[in-house]
Amino acid sequence: MNIKSIIKENKWENLFTKAVFGIEKESQRIKEDGTITESSHPIEFGNRNFHPYIQTDFAESQLELVTPPVDSVGEVMEWLAAIHDVVHRTIPSDEYLLPFSLPSIMPTEENIQVAKLDKKEDVHYREYLAQVYGKKKQMMSGIHYNFEFHQDFLQALFSKQQKYDNYRAFQTQIYFKLTHNFLRYQWILTYLLGASIETKAEYFQDNKIPDDIPDRLIRSLRSSKYGYVNSEDVHVSFRTIEEYVETIEKMVEDGKLIEEKEFYSSVRFRGGKNAREVLKNGITYLEFRLFDLNPFAEYGITAEDMQFIHLFFMYLLWIEEAASEDDWEKGHEMNYQTAFEDPLSVSAFQDEGIQLLSGIIEMLEEINADSESIDIAKEKLAAFTYPEKTLSGRLASMKENGQDLLEWGVKKAKQTKETALERPYTLAGFEDMELSTQILLFDAIQHGFEIDILDRSDQFLSLEYNNHLEYIKNGNMTSLDTYISPLIMENKVVTKKILAKNGYSVPESKEYQNSEEAVKDFSLFEKKAFVIKPKSTNYGLGISIFREGASKENFTKAVEIAFEEDSTILVEDFVEGTEYRFFVIGKETKAVLLRVPANVTGDGVHTINELVEAKNNDPLRGRNHRSPLEKIELGKIEMMTLEEQGYTLEDIPAEGVTVYLRDNSNVSTGGDSIDYTDKVDESYKILAGEMAQALGATISGMDMMIKDYRIPSTKENPGYGVIEANFNPMMMMHIYPYEGKGRRLTLDVLSLLFPEMDLLRNEKEVRK
Amino acid sequence: MNIKSIIKENKWENLFTKAVFGIEKESQRIKEDGTITESSHPIEFGNRNFHPYIQTDFAESQLELVTPPVDSVGEVMEWLAAIHDVVHRTIPSDEYLLPFSLPSIMPTEENIQVAKLDKKEDVHYREYLAQVYGKKKQMMSGIHYNFEFHQDFLQALFSKQQKYDNYRAFQTQIYFKLTHNFLRYQWILTYLLGASIETKAEYFQDNKIPDDIPDRLIRSLRSSKYGYVNSEDVHVSFRTIEEYVETIEKMVEDGKLIEEKEFYSSVRFRGGKNAREVLKNGITYLEFRLFDLNPFAEYGITAEDMQFIHLFFMYLLWIEEAASEDDWEKGHEMNYQTAFEDPLSVSAFQDEGIQLLSGIIEMLEEINADSESIDIAKEKLAAFTYPEKTLSGRLASMKENGQDLLEWGVKKAKQTKETALERPYTLAGFEDMELSTQILLFDAIQHGFEIDILDRSDQFLSLEYNNHLEYIKNGNMTSLDTYISPLIMENKVVTKKILAKNGYSVPESKEYQNSEEAVKDFSLFEKKAFVIKPKSTNYGLGISIFREGASKENFTKAVEIAFEEDSTILVEDFVEGTEYRFFVIGKETKAVLLRVPANVTGDGVHTINELVEAKNNDPLRGRNHRSPLEKIELGKIEMMTLEEQGYTLEDIPAEGVTVYLRDNSNVSTGGDSIDYTDKVDESYKILAGEMAQALGATISGMDMMIKDYRIPSTKENPGYGVIEANFNPMMMMHIYPYEGKGRRLTLDVLSLLFPEMDLLRNEKEVRK
Repeated sequence: MNIKSIIKENKWENLFTKAVFGIEKESQRIKEDGTITESSHPIEFGNRNFHPYIQTDFAESQLELVTPPVDSVGEVMEWLAAIHDVVHRTIPSDEYLLPFSLPSIMPTEENIQVAKLDKKEDVHYREYLAQVYGKKKQMMSGIHYNFEFHQDFLQALFSKQQKYDNYRAFQTQIYFKLTHNFLRYQWILTYLLGASIETKAEYFQDNKIPDDIPDRLIRSLRSSKYGYVNSEDVHVSFRTIEEYVETIEKMVEDGKLIEEKEFYSSVRFRGGKNAREVLKNGITYLEFRLFDLNPFAEYGITAEDMQFIHLFFMYLLWIEEAASEDDWEKGHEMNYQTAFEDPLSVSAFQDEGIQLLSGIIEMLEEINADSESIDIAKEKLAAFTYPEKTLSGRLASMKENGQDLLEWGVKKAKQTKETALERPYTLAGFEDMELSTQILLFDAIQHGFEIDILDRSDQFLSLEYNNHLEYIKNGNMTSLDTYISPLIMENKVVTKKILAKNGYSVPESKEYQNSEEAVKDFSLFEKKAFVIKPKSTNYGLGISIFREGASKENFTKAVEIAFEEDSTILVEDFVEGTEYRFFVIGKETKAVLLRVPANVTGDGVHTINELVEAKNNDPLRGRNHRSPLEKIELGKIEMMTLEEQGYTLEDIPAEGVTVYLRDNSNVSTGGDSIDYTDKVDESYKILAGEMAQALGATISGMDMMIKDYRIPSTKENPGYGVIEANFNPMMMMHIYPYEGKGRRLTLDVLSLLFPEMDLLRNEKEVRK
Repeated sequence: MNIKSIIKENKWENLFTKAVFGIEKESQRIKEDGTITESSHPIEFGNRNFHPYIQTDFAESQLELVTPPVDSVGEVMEWLAAIHDVVHRTIPSDEYLLPFSLPSIMPTEENIQVAKLDKKEDVHYREYLAQVYGKKKQMMSGIHYNFEFHQDFLQALFSKQQKYDNYRAFQTQIYFKLTHNFLRYQWILTYLLGASIETKAEYFQDNKIPDDIPDRLIRSLRSSKYGYVNSEDVHVSFRTIEEYVETIEKMVEDGKLIEEKEFYSSVRFRGGKNAREVLKNGITYLEFRLFDLNPFAEYGITAEDMQFIHLFFMYLLWIEEAASEDDWEKGHEMNYQTAFEDPLSVSAFQDEGIQLLSGIIEMLEEINADSESIDIAKEKLAAFTYPEKTLSGRLASMKENGQDLLEWGVKKAKQTKETALERPYTLAGFEDMELSTQILLFDAIQHGFEIDILDRSDQFLSLEYNNHLEYIKNGNMTSLDTYISPLIMENKVVTKKILAKNGYSVPESKEYQNSEEAVKDFSLFEKKAFVIKPKSTNYGLGISIFREGASKENFTKAVEIAFEEDSTILVEDFVEGTEYRFFVIGKETKAVLLRVPANVTGDGVHTINELVEAKNNDPLRGRNHRSPLEKIELGKIEMMTLEEQGYTLEDIPAEGVTVYLRDNSNVSTGGDSIDYTDKVDESYKILAGEMAQALGATISGMDMMIKDYRIPSTKENPGYGVIEANFNPMMMMHIYPYEGKGRRLTLDVLSLLFPEMDLLRNEKEVRK
């Protein structure tokens, strides 16, 4: 089967480029001085028994970060970024992630803590490894690259051949070809991406550098014969899938491997829990294990290198050649040789490297690949002429120029962590999503929920925890609420009718379908405090407030303004007091917020203009809902508001004087959010919870006008008026308020959706 | 307190016209020959213990129809119309409602069946009445008019006086004034609206017309001293509320009344369960009981007369005069005298009548009332000069002209019923609402749910049944569904992902954000059957179907068409088969429907044009969703569809040949709906129920393509593809299909929301 011609004949070039990727990245947690931390795996990461993203590898300090399988390199990067954000914000403030594969400062054998796992078999396995390989060897970290051609592509290929009538057997054959060619050419990856260049006596169990290691920098200790490899008497055949299963099972039987997973090949077949299952299921994907951490990359590997590895795999399938058993052995040796080479020297196999890279570029041109891919391949091609362009070459150059790699690595680690802490209200990789969904994703990753982003632009997720599945949209639209309850809240009139009927204090309001009818009733309102507003708009548009009655002229005008927004308007009694937002989850008020219109407070020195600028520098303030608070704009409305108070932008308010730039208190127009959860009298919080229940709501935001938040509400003197109930209420302004304590509402939503999560958390605390 | 000047000073004229109204209407069920029916109260009306709208009065045959209290005469009429629709469509096909207050053919005492009520006290009370008054007197029917000034108006008045510091006492005083003046002037209503003109020997217990009744037609037997009045020794004082309570309680104590409710005044105080409660609560509204059924009105009273009575009440408050105790006595006598007058004679109190009516008109002019009200008052004024304009006068004229009133009445009753049966898929009075809500309201009225229309234009109801309250919007949006499940169904991609993940047969589809990406994948679809469609539109817009692959040009064109409707499009495998809609409630498929594109079937005689016209004459077909089916339009698309098949409108298709006028099968474009519930293999119905469950949906419409509906679906040969899941699915097309059995889905929704309703229904059936 000539895959190349099948692809070209059927115009499957685009399909050929599609694949599924997943990365596992190991990383040591270190202290500021570069030593490995002795602290435990953070309890916030939940249960390692099933955590899909954050595990520990051999050592307690050795994090293993796992992305789910996704359809593009871009998505892998997003997941790596997100998981790293979670890790960086969860580990103790004085810990960092080491960017190197080998610990810069290797602890003594006794000081290496094996991961504290729950399951006895997991602990025993690690104890066995420590005994056979020594603990130090297990401290090496790297990247595992899981790769799968797209099902559609393999199915298409399958339809064009006669040799296999079984799709699984065909698929296995494809992965055999990739594996065989990989074994032959893996040295190229070690040449380009090897990055464990230092050899130190402390790395070895006997604190002595073996004699056959050159006494200089090398390309990769981890990919060398002193890397993560089995003893010489472990022989597993890659000839056929049956032979593979037989030989690996024999190794275990003979006690040469304690378990199949101890087989440390640079490539492993995946498709089942053990080799025999792969025989049944076929190989469904491959795991490549020879990648050192790239210390220049934020997350251990760059998108470009991931992309390059993909192109390399494509090429190994594209070429007619299928490496023979002798070739594998040859490739193996070439790889070991490459690993020991001087990073700044030209490869001994330069010609083959240039030839293969040129082949990749040729293939890319034949399939009309994007210029980005071609550029990546050309860059790698150049590295065969200029070894200083390889990862090991770059590191060696730095060292040659007097750079202390440990110092550089720690600085790099600290910078990466700082970046992750800069905007704690976002989740790297998912910054296109709504902030509340980003925070929910953060909590879900942290606690080990299995996440499926069902529709990204629609903020639609599914979360699974211990076989319990729930769907969530926009951060808090869930199965906890009924269908009818948000429909009730969407309709102001219905909401009020229900609240009033249930005995809550609701401002009286009248509904009008035309201005004539409304104006007829003018005499009813003439001397009252009242509000005229459209029935169903939500953004403060078309609302007029009259605190001390109105003239008929102004009444009529306000009615007309309201009718511009809706075909029905409400004239409503104005309730005295201050407006607070009560966030109710279940029957409980979880957060109370006061919103204050955009303002600055004078210091007797700076102008209003300067004060606004200073306030806008707060990292919590941004634009277009990409931050919990919005910057204060100096637009028409703000200028008018200042003018009404007799201010100009150049005025210098006296110390302590607050100048308002808006009348409305919306956070979206630069207002401040101030947490009042612990200040407001309990009675109001209970009321908000009860009101939500009357509306059948589980998650809602109740807006109440309160005369004095310190004085309890009683039946005789309710002291409040409820003015609105909101479904899918904003969470960010409570989580990151301008002032006061943040309330992690996303976590409250998760605990109500998954009550068993709290049970586990409690268990963990007891265990601790 | 001069109410008139307070109203004028404060410009409360509009407020003064506001009031709350409620009507109780008694009606005998009759047979075609005018005799009272002997059948039981229909079981479909549910439980008379608490039915808010449909009760029985004294006799089993005597329906009492009750409207809820509403804010306008218009709304009362709507409720009367709706309740009448329910009654007319529920009573046996050979029964009608007698339009007269007195039975045209009075049964013998023995043949009058007392209402078969559950509660012993109710039965005893009726037995007592039969004994004291005779059964025949109890067979008189009429209208009770419940009236309440608007709270806002009374509160406003209260704020302008000093005499009462207690609002309840003040309110009671207002209703006293109305009551006193009513007692004085009630004769005017008997003059204008009296309509029981015949006196027959059989009406009386001893089958003998009393001597003091004139031997001719009279204005109203029911409002005369032989009407529904207590014996002469019942004396209740209307002087003060305390005296009223004392005297009525004494009457009961002395055994002159068995219960307070036996006090048959033409006006009664309301405000509590008994007189003493009224003392505590104050009078909250008045019940006026002297209205004969208007045999000319469909529902026993016209809107104009209701309006007139309201104006009359306003006037009785407006005038300074407050009738004295002597006046009440005088008024009482004048009323009796009026009742006995010859219907075609001028009133003995013509001058007073003209004066009072002129006063009403004057009042209306002073408060700038609408011309409609003034016209009504003028019409009544004229009736004092032209007695033939009164109800009794009109009836008497008919009789004078040789009309048999019994025959006329039966004809009238039959016509009214026929009208109610004409469009069984609508509910009179609520025809502005969606059809599904109309039918749900019908079922709710029939079964005795307490209905609150929370927002009419938003189709928002609350239903209460035995203290169990539920909210319903658009006929089937309820608390039965979760918030997230319609959100899932709204998103086609998410819906499919979930269904596929749960193992259901879903056509594979790919999502694209731009046409370039889509066209790149053209080779994947080139030779397949597939559909290109926008991700989220729902009305068939932008969809292209390719049953046998496509050229690249057509593929590109279709992609662009789809992108015109949405920013994301889907290219989806086309599933072979016929599309069926499965309506799932709970886990059960309650209805299955096949939709067929607009079509006509030839008879070898008529042209396509004529066939369309004939088909459109079906009363089930209408326009703009005001009927279960839509008329076939002959627009551009229909003409094109004909043309493509080589037809013109003037062609005469051969007998049995079906000509399609549309490609799409939507009912909204003239398609036919055919019930397949009992035809489709059970396996598909089970599947639809399970799929709905996987989506967390309680009420949903699953659209499935099925190859052969008779062949069971199996795991190996599913035989279906699910193409869409719909929340708030249409119900009408199932309830009134073009062909096959209708499925009363509204009743299924109610039984799932109120499982106790079915329990009661079963109990009733057992009881029966």
